[in-house]
This record gives sequence, C-alpha cells and structure tokens, in this order.
Amino acid sequence: MHVRGFTVGDGNFVRSPGQDADIFVANLVDHADGAPVSIGYGRYGPDQSLTETMAVDDVMIVLEGALTVTADGRAIEARSGAIVHMPKGQRVTIRAGSEGALTAFVTYPHWEVARG
Amino acid sequence: MHVRGFTVGDGNFVRSPGQDADIFVANLVDHADGAPVSIGYGRYGPDQSLTETMAVDDVMIVLEGALTVTADGRAIEARSGAIVHMPKGQRVTIRAGSEGALTAFVTYPHWEVARG
Repeated sequence: MHVRGFTVGDGNFVRSPGQDADIFVANLVDHADGAPVSIGYGRYGPDQSLTETMAVDDVMIVLEGALTVTADGRAIEARSGAIVHMPKGQRVTIRAGSEGALTAFVTYPHWEVARG
Repeated sequence: MHVRGFTVGDGNFVRSPGQDADIFVANLVDHADGAPVSIGYGRYGPDQSLTETMAVDDVMIVLEGALTVTADGRAIEARSGAIVHMPKGQRVTIRAGSEGALTAFVTYPHWEVARG
C-alpha cells in the first residue's frame, strides 16, 4: 500500500445502510485495499439522526457543522474539530444540528464487513 | 468502554518522540483504554517537519492549516478537511506550511506500543 491523500470531493456518497434519513457515507479506504481500517467521510442533513449498535470501533471527527451523540443516557455535543470515539457494542444515536454536518471516520475493523 | 467525546482542549500535548522540531502529539485514547486504536491530536509549528518510517497504519485528518506529505517521491498537499492514510512500513516526510497545522489522528495498532 502507498500513502494516499483524500478530500471530500473524492467521496462517492451513498445512503448510509439500514436507515432512511438523509445521512450519507463515502468509503475511501476499505477491506478491498488491504488496510486494517476503513476510512471515509460522512454527511448528515439538517436535523437528521440515526440510531445503531456499533458493529466496530468507530472514530468520528467533525469537520463542519455539529452533531449530538447520545449513549448511555449521556449527550455529547461535537462541533468542528471534535473527535467522538464510539466503541464496538455501544448503542448510539447521532443527531445533526440545524446546519447538518460533515465528518471524517476511521473504523476498526471494516464496518461494511462487520455489518455484512 | 463508553462513548467519549474530545476537543483539542482535552489534549495534553508533548513533543513527538524521536525528533526535535516543534511538533507535538496528544493521545486521547491509547492501549491503556482497551481500545484497538490510538486516537489523538497533532500540532505542527510553522514550517516544521519530521521524517519517519510508519510503525503502524496512521490516518491523519487536517483540522487547521496545511501539510505536505511526501512519500515515494510524491508530494500530497493536505489542507483543512483532507485525510491522509499512511500505511505501516511507508517512509514519509510531513512538513507543515507557514501557518502550521492541527491534525486529528487514528492509528492501528497503538503507535506508542509499536515504537516501543
């Protein structure tokens, strides 16, 4: 594997599986690349939310906008520059603010493989 | 493990090991937390650079400023919002621009353990 750089313009955004909200994901690096992690961007429309049980460890970095991540009854506010670590097995609700949000993510292992 | 959120103000920045430049690293999640990945922030002073052979897969997300990552004779320009994947075993030079840079990183496995 070689060193690779990406910008959001490189992302092929598709609707995040298992939900109907305006939440989209773009994988840049995944199992097909032979890397141990999946890497990509996420895009959340205004006030959109999803709830899921994490199939992998997921690290989300907020690049634009704001999100609220709720787990175990606690709400974490994450604005641009914030990092949220969502460990495997945790049940989380991610809700975008009124401006929506753009995120980068890294998962270990590969989220698409883990979700099947 | 629980879901955790971080901002750059949570970081305890120390000089990045093995080099003398004004380049600092702040681990937020590491092997002591029982997670499979290390997570943190990096801060680069203006025009500072380091060269290293990657001991782990390192994903760097540029939050502020700009960096140039050179590997295999290719230079990747990375500005705010860019993601750079530096696979294990690659030799890279990371150079900050004239405004320095703030980054988020995720490594698999733990960079501090791999460096010994």
